[in-house]
Amino acid sequence: MNAPTPNQQALYQARYGSPEPAVPAAGSPIIDHLLAHRSVRAYLPDPVSDDQLAAIVAAAQSAASSSNLHAWSVVAVRDPERKARLSIMAGDQPHIRQAPLFLVWLADLARLEQVATTAGEAHAALDYLEMLQVGFIDASLAAQNAVTAAESLGLGTVYIGGIRNQPEAVAAELQLPPRTVAVFGLCVGTPDPAQPAAVKPRPPQSVVLHHETYSLPAQAAGLAEYDGAMTAFYASQGMKVRGTWSNHSAKRIRDAAALTGRDRLVEALNARGFPLK
Amino acid sequence: MNAPTPNQQALYQARYGSPEPAVPAAGSPIIDHLLAHRSVRAYLPDPVSDDQLAAIVAAAQSAASSSNLHAWSVVAVRDPERKARLSIMAGDQPHIRQAPLFLVWLADLARLEQVATTAGEAHAALDYLEMLQVGFIDASLAAQNAVTAAESLGLGTVYIGGIRNQPEAVAAELQLPPRTVAVFGLCVGTPDPAQPAAVKPRPPQSVVLHHETYSLPAQAAGLAEYDGAMTAFYASQGMKVRGTWSNHSAKRIRDAAALTGRDRLVEALNARGFPLK
Repeated sequence: MNAPTPNQQALYQARYGSPEPAVPAAGSPIIDHLLAHRSVRAYLPDPVSDDQLAAIVAAAQSAASSSNLHAWSVVAVRDPERKARLSIMAGDQPHIRQAPLFLVWLADLARLEQVATTAGEAHAALDYLEMLQVGFIDASLAAQNAVTAAESLGLGTVYIGGIRNQPEAVAAELQLPPRTVAVFGLCVGTPDPAQPAAVKPRPPQSVVLHHETYSLPAQAAGLAEYDGAMTAFYASQGMKVRGTWSNHSAKRIRDAAALTGRDRLVEALNARGFPLK
Repeated sequence: MNAPTPNQQALYQARYGSPEPAVPAAGSPIIDHLLAHRSVRAYLPDPVSDDQLAAIVAAAQSAASSSNLHAWSVVAVRDPERKARLSIMAGDQPHIRQAPLFLVWLADLARLEQVATTAGEAHAALDYLEMLQVGFIDASLAAQNAVTAAESLGLGTVYIGGIRNQPEAVAAELQLPPRTVAVFGLCVGTPDPAQPAAVKPRPPQSVVLHHETYSLPAQAAGLAEYDGAMTAFYASQGMKVRGTWSNHSAKRIRDAAALTGRDRLVEALNARGFPLK
């Protein structure tokens, strides 16, 4: 590959919040597309068409699935009243109401239970935490392909972890059977050009990438650098944020109350038909 | 968008194992790229360069992260002896030995514990199942971007769920601290053209995509169709497979023994520093 293009230079600068990021001598237009990802929280009312949704779901299904079990589903919600109710359950996030399409991604073991029952087999493995994790992984791989696909159609997205705040209420709203649970939501729509979203910096690769074995001390310098990059990012966005990324992150994991209801996830999963053996 | 191109027609045919699939009137070159995904289990010895790895990790980092916490890491393993040991732990899968690069994706709460400790804060939320799920989701979103990026560089990949068979042994091999655990592995390398991988069919969209509310009965027709598509796929690949996809899937979830060690995931996670409150 040739030297980085000015566009690649700019993409890496934004992605790492660094004026002089390391730009690898390997790349592709698709990697450029992935680097440019940003979470969108302001949408135009333009609908997402059924054809766009079908293309997005085909991309989602093209992701790998553990043992080809397809332990996931997705519920496409367009009804404004249902979106409004879900937005409240997920911590009153207005962009869920604003986005024309809200996708709720499920870990789905209900289908597999039905497949086993129809085949006259037992399904004792479904009671184990491992199978819930398969559902979470399958749903996540599919959703990330959906994000990449949606962005290639000019749409924007944002994940909504708040959908795990009240799993039973979400299940009632979507008529979910036992052994299914919402993993996260995903807003999809046309980004409002009047409120453009920014690329949020990531930590240097030395923080997340390890060679042969893992090292915690090796991350310290990169984390300090990241605190600086995030402080500069907040300033550039006119966000009045007090404290560093490290401060915020520490607060986010300080106690059970910081989990906004998700500290009772085990109880909620048990109620949803996941014994978590 | 115009009518589907012959290439798009062929991509949807392969993806759904159907001679006449529904091809949506929306698409993009990036969606075409995602549709063409296949899992690769035969590799040439050509190395994956540091520049390629850096571009792949930059793409991975560009995926969303819950609350911007970056609760994941990845260990890049190239050492043949370490790969050989990991391959045995993961159910003796020879492609882990053959691939020049094996990426082990981690749910990583150890970094956050260190961030909190350094900030003088408590970190009680890390003890909850919710935070493990955040790690699994973050790692999965990142890894799926890595797959998309790797394929755009001409590389092939395959996920290795077997890395969860023996979490403690994998942790010892990679020197993982408490509050980290392997989510899955990913082989990366140049596909061996002498053993080309096929696109594996997926169920019709009626199986995984729901509108407004979830329905189990609505999936029955699509599942029957999928059994037919998979039987035709096995035949086309010269695979001597007995029974349908439904039969195999049912066997895969029949009992704890079918989980190949992962029935003790709760115990292993407890030992790895995840109390799973």
